[in-house]
Amino acid sequence: MTRSILAPRRFDRDAYISQINSGLALRTEIESILDKIFEKEVRDIYFVGIGGTLASAMQAETYIQSRCALNVFALSAAVFNCGGKQKAGKGDLFIYSSVSGTTKEMVEMTAKAKEKGITLLAFVDTPDTPLANSADYCVCSPKNEQLKFFMICNYLLKRNGLFPDYDRYNAQMEEYLAKGLADISESFEEQAKAYAHQKCAWLKQHPEMPHYFVAAGTQYGAAVSHGMCYWEEQLWIRTRVVHSAEFFHGLLEVIDENTPVTLFIEEGNERPLSLRVKAFLEKINSNHLFLDSADYPLPGIDEKYRPSVTHLIFRALNDRIDAWLEYDLDHSLDIRRYYRQFNY
Amino acid sequence: MTRSILAPRRFDRDAYISQINSGLALRTEIESILDKIFEKEVRDIYFVGIGGTLASAMQAETYIQSRCALNVFALSAAVFNCGGKQKAGKGDLFIYSSVSGTTKEMVEMTAKAKEKGITLLAFVDTPDTPLANSADYCVCSPKNEQLKFFMICNYLLKRNGLFPDYDRYNAQMEEYLAKGLADISESFEEQAKAYAHQKCAWLKQHPEMPHYFVAAGTQYGAAVSHGMCYWEEQLWIRTRVVHSAEFFHGLLEVIDENTPVTLFIEEGNERPLSLRVKAFLEKINSNHLFLDSADYPLPGIDEKYRPSVTHLIFRALNDRIDAWLEYDLDHSLDIRRYYRQFNY
Repeated sequence: MTRSILAPRRFDRDAYISQINSGLALRTEIESILDKIFEKEVRDIYFVGIGGTLASAMQAETYIQSRCALNVFALSAAVFNCGGKQKAGKGDLFIYSSVSGTTKEMVEMTAKAKEKGITLLAFVDTPDTPLANSADYCVCSPKNEQLKFFMICNYLLKRNGLFPDYDRYNAQMEEYLAKGLADISESFEEQAKAYAHQKCAWLKQHPEMPHYFVAAGTQYGAAVSHGMCYWEEQLWIRTRVVHSAEFFHGLLEVIDENTPVTLFIEEGNERPLSLRVKAFLEKINSNHLFLDSADYPLPGIDEKYRPSVTHLIFRALNDRIDAWLEYDLDHSLDIRRYYRQFNY
Repeated sequence: MTRSILAPRRFDRDAYISQINSGLALRTEIESILDKIFEKEVRDIYFVGIGGTLASAMQAETYIQSRCALNVFALSAAVFNCGGKQKAGKGDLFIYSSVSGTTKEMVEMTAKAKEKGITLLAFVDTPDTPLANSADYCVCSPKNEQLKFFMICNYLLKRNGLFPDYDRYNAQMEEYLAKGLADISESFEEQAKAYAHQKCAWLKQHPEMPHYFVAAGTQYGAAVSHGMCYWEEQLWIRTRVVHSAEFFHGLLEVIDENTPVTLFIEEGNERPLSLRVKAFLEKINSNHLFLDSADYPLPGIDEKYRPSVTHLIFRALNDRIDAWLEYDLDHSLDIRRYYRQFNY
């Protein structure tokens, strides 16, 4: 059989470190845009998205709502377009991100939001696109969507007097985060390769079985994105993502010894919910992968800052698994059957 | 082979009509409790739940947020217990429902909420249980969880001057709703039987394939509940529930001609999102069931009131499918492998 993918995508340490650091380098630009926006009174703040960008918005919402009482919410662009979330209106701030700058639902959302007098702050990877051009403020810089959202959240906390050691935090991130994550990627390579080989063999026996991803806290949104944008959309593997707390109300009944599960155990306030799933799975299941961010050191970064970046640890791990799955399944992550292939 | 279920559960028209009407009859009790609660200033209102009751809370949130700007939100009890949603606190009202009155996460939630000075309004099916006894206000009456939540929402709208024809609405519901839904159940019986037979045969060929449920608006929460509490928990059938808008961002790539999908098309403001899924599935899939609430008349009830009760139409339809699936699969809806079978 002729392979279409001749070699696995290798981890490019320099490119990765440069990517993370270029995201972190946006901080002063983000701060000055937010300072400008907050010269006028801002009512509520919405991270608006659809699909993967909604999953990122969910992460931002969970992050900030577990730290303060600010009115910061996630919002589906499609629901807003249909007249849902009537609360969102004049004086609010919408923050959103787009790689293409052309996503249909998002373009419609910006038009409706402008009519309502909502301020628009966009992060668009591709300049001179509808989403870049329609925003009141736009940061044009590729990749790092979650990182950008978390930087906004951190500065919102700081502006509200809720992040007294903001400077220490950023100094550590800017010095140590990229290298630490790159080291984690590299240290995980052999495990990722072995896991992908085994999963690929298993999938050949069980092509219809969904893979269950379980997570809590900010990692829940990240898991939604991983299941939907990476495995379903890019790898064409069936998935079912569930919040660790919801796992115990329904889903658990279809888990038996052989059901494939990945549990992400993060370090934020919802960690106990995932530890409960871990204890349960250890009793009844033997086809699981437990990924605990606490197992992956980030030298130079204080313990208490880690919950803000555990989603990046998991992304680093998952990216290596996905690179090997792409190779083992010989299925390019870039093929789409339907998405943007015709009008629907 | 000996069957354990000797006959399908038949639709009991009288019991059903009596159940719906006993729910509707709670209206004056609910109104007077809310009047009493609102004698003091109430800040934000949360429908709090876990599992199926969180799915009901999501329906209430979507219903009210698409009609007004009131601060009404859904909240996971487990997330609240872990220190998420810090915004929820003194002066807020928590509304929740429980069949058993003993759900672990909910009992913990009420203790934490009391400490914070949050007012508790409970709907508990079983009197003299921890959740019934700990609430500031408790309505003890079995079943009709969603109906109770929607009645609260309607009265909140009315109290805020947003439901001018509240009396006409309730007069129609109280005269026509139960009978109309019962007629719908009966009219669907043969289709439910045929669909369940076919699905059961299909499941024998594809025991690992998840069934995809797609819905928008208030029906999304109802579909989450249906996939999780009815199919996964009670029938042990794998499911994956997705919002109609999110369907187009990831999931669509794993849908082919034979993938089993049920699409619920409701009549509220998000209907266009589900019609888009319908058009897409008609092109690429031939193993779907489209259930459109608009196909099921409710004589005596104004067109414009129907979106508030379409979830009950779908529940009536699904209940008949489930009754036949239980029989065809010979799998009692009451068996649990794990849930409440041991400590976890």
